[in-house]
Amino acid sequence: MTAETLSIGIVQCALGGSRVENAERVLALVREAAKGGAQLVVTPELLEGPYFCREEKDSFFEWARPVEGNVTLARFQALAKELGVVLPFSFFEKAGNAYYNTLAMVDADGALLGTYRKSHIPDGPGYEEKFYFRPGDTGFRVFETKAGKVGGAVCWDQWYPECARALALLGADVLVYPTAIGSEPANPALDTRDRWRRAMVGHAVSNVIPVAASNRIGEEDGQLFYGSSFVAGTDGSFLAELGRDETGVRVVTVDLAAIRRERASWGFFRDRRPELYGVLTTADGRQKV
Amino acid sequence: MTAETLSIGIVQCALGGSRVENAERVLALVREAAKGGAQLVVTPELLEGPYFCREEKDSFFEWARPVEGNVTLARFQALAKELGVVLPFSFFEKAGNAYYNTLAMVDADGALLGTYRKSHIPDGPGYEEKFYFRPGDTGFRVFETKAGKVGGAVCWDQWYPECARALALLGADVLVYPTAIGSEPANPALDTRDRWRRAMVGHAVSNVIPVAASNRIGEEDGQLFYGSSFVAGTDGSFLAELGRDETGVRVVTVDLAAIRRERASWGFFRDRRPELYGVLTTADGRQKV
Repeated sequence: MTAETLSIGIVQCALGGSRVENAERVLALVREAAKGGAQLVVTPELLEGPYFCREEKDSFFEWARPVEGNVTLARFQALAKELGVVLPFSFFEKAGNAYYNTLAMVDADGALLGTYRKSHIPDGPGYEEKFYFRPGDTGFRVFETKAGKVGGAVCWDQWYPECARALALLGADVLVYPTAIGSEPANPALDTRDRWRRAMVGHAVSNVIPVAASNRIGEEDGQLFYGSSFVAGTDGSFLAELGRDETGVRVVTVDLAAIRRERASWGFFRDRRPELYGVLTTADGRQKV
Repeated sequence: MTAETLSIGIVQCALGGSRVENAERVLALVREAAKGGAQLVVTPELLEGPYFCREEKDSFFEWARPVEGNVTLARFQALAKELGVVLPFSFFEKAGNAYYNTLAMVDADGALLGTYRKSHIPDGPGYEEKFYFRPGDTGFRVFETKAGKVGGAVCWDQWYPECARALALLGADVLVYPTAIGSEPANPALDTRDRWRRAMVGHAVSNVIPVAASNRIGEEDGQLFYGSSFVAGTDGSFLAELGRDETGVRVVTVDLAAIRRERASWGFFRDRRPELYGVLTTADGRQKV
């Protein structure tokens, strides 16, 4: 294992219990992934509790915690240091009167490198995130960790080619997406699993970059989370995956040096036309005048 | 068939013969697609001849033709009018001393709605397009045809999430990609077929839009074109496809009104953050100051 390879772990489990139970369940799996050689372990979104965004209920704001003094974050930092793994942590952040869906990037020595606040906030039956979270104000962030440059994003961000491309432009070696996604309460016949994967597989191919997503499993008050966590390689194939109701971890190793050469050789970044992309910075396609 | 549905045809064949033979072979298949109900027919890239970009040879510049007086374009216009189909035509354009890889959008009454010049130009062993084509100067274009709003792009553009998103922002109902892609002379072990499809499947899902790609088949001087033309639905599944060495057509019908509702309901465009996308307009990830 040289500095030019990266072993990526993904963790998948149910998260319906108490804050401490959930964190400890996840951390036990992180330990298992580290034992399997993982240098970076991706865990599910908002792992401290049930996916409360299923409904709009003001009592859930009490779940939020600031970065400073965050007990679960401290647990993640301690284990990251003990195991020597990079360990992004997804949590409900309270920042004064603003609340965010935040990813804290914990380096392999336990240091907090910084936070990313989820940029794209969904809203719809079963996923009422706009009630809870302000759209993130950090912009897209790539963290220089001891295991490589990690592009950190969260769940709904994963549907956005803009986010993936931005992280690749900012130098990411790998994209990680903590996730909470499952059934659609208003549309039980709609299974979004394959769309969810295909969007991220597209990012992997178009940016010639490995993509890792960790999702939860289990039923929470009628909402069934479909797991299916994966690591996709630069060709979009699944290097590792977990089932729809499987608790566990997977670890795969990618060769970052080979991928950088492959990315340059494909020429996608060479042939981009930024002068034609102004329309992407509009909401409705009107070219700015 | 109402104005709110769209029947999309794709055409696939070998194109190794003379200019007239190739055009007539393609137009016979267009006729077959129209017989099958197609209102829009997508044909392969640079269909008038072999894929000359395999090598850098100045004699191939003689293949180029201006828009005005273009005999093959006139043939396409005549057949479009006869059959009442929208018929984009991909050709090597000579515009004074500038040469482009151009798509002419022919409406169902035979009118030329305008041209799009391929924005992203590849370059590498077997695909030496930078020797022949200036990067397009038209920007991304959506054409209001009698069958719907057609986002027209060409081959290498298909790997760019920027292009697909731009066309969706500009109001496209469908994305079409005339293509010429196959084996890699410098890397015979590399089969790019699945990556090629996965990138466009990603566009279909992320933009909730049907995507149609037509590729050629057959061997040309050792380079094997892999066909595999397809229409992907908004969930990224293949609504229709052709094999790696199959000559023929496919026609599928999509419900544009239902897709517009589906696109709104998913909320991807609602939740975009244009103010964070400035980095996309850079070549190297440096935020402009």
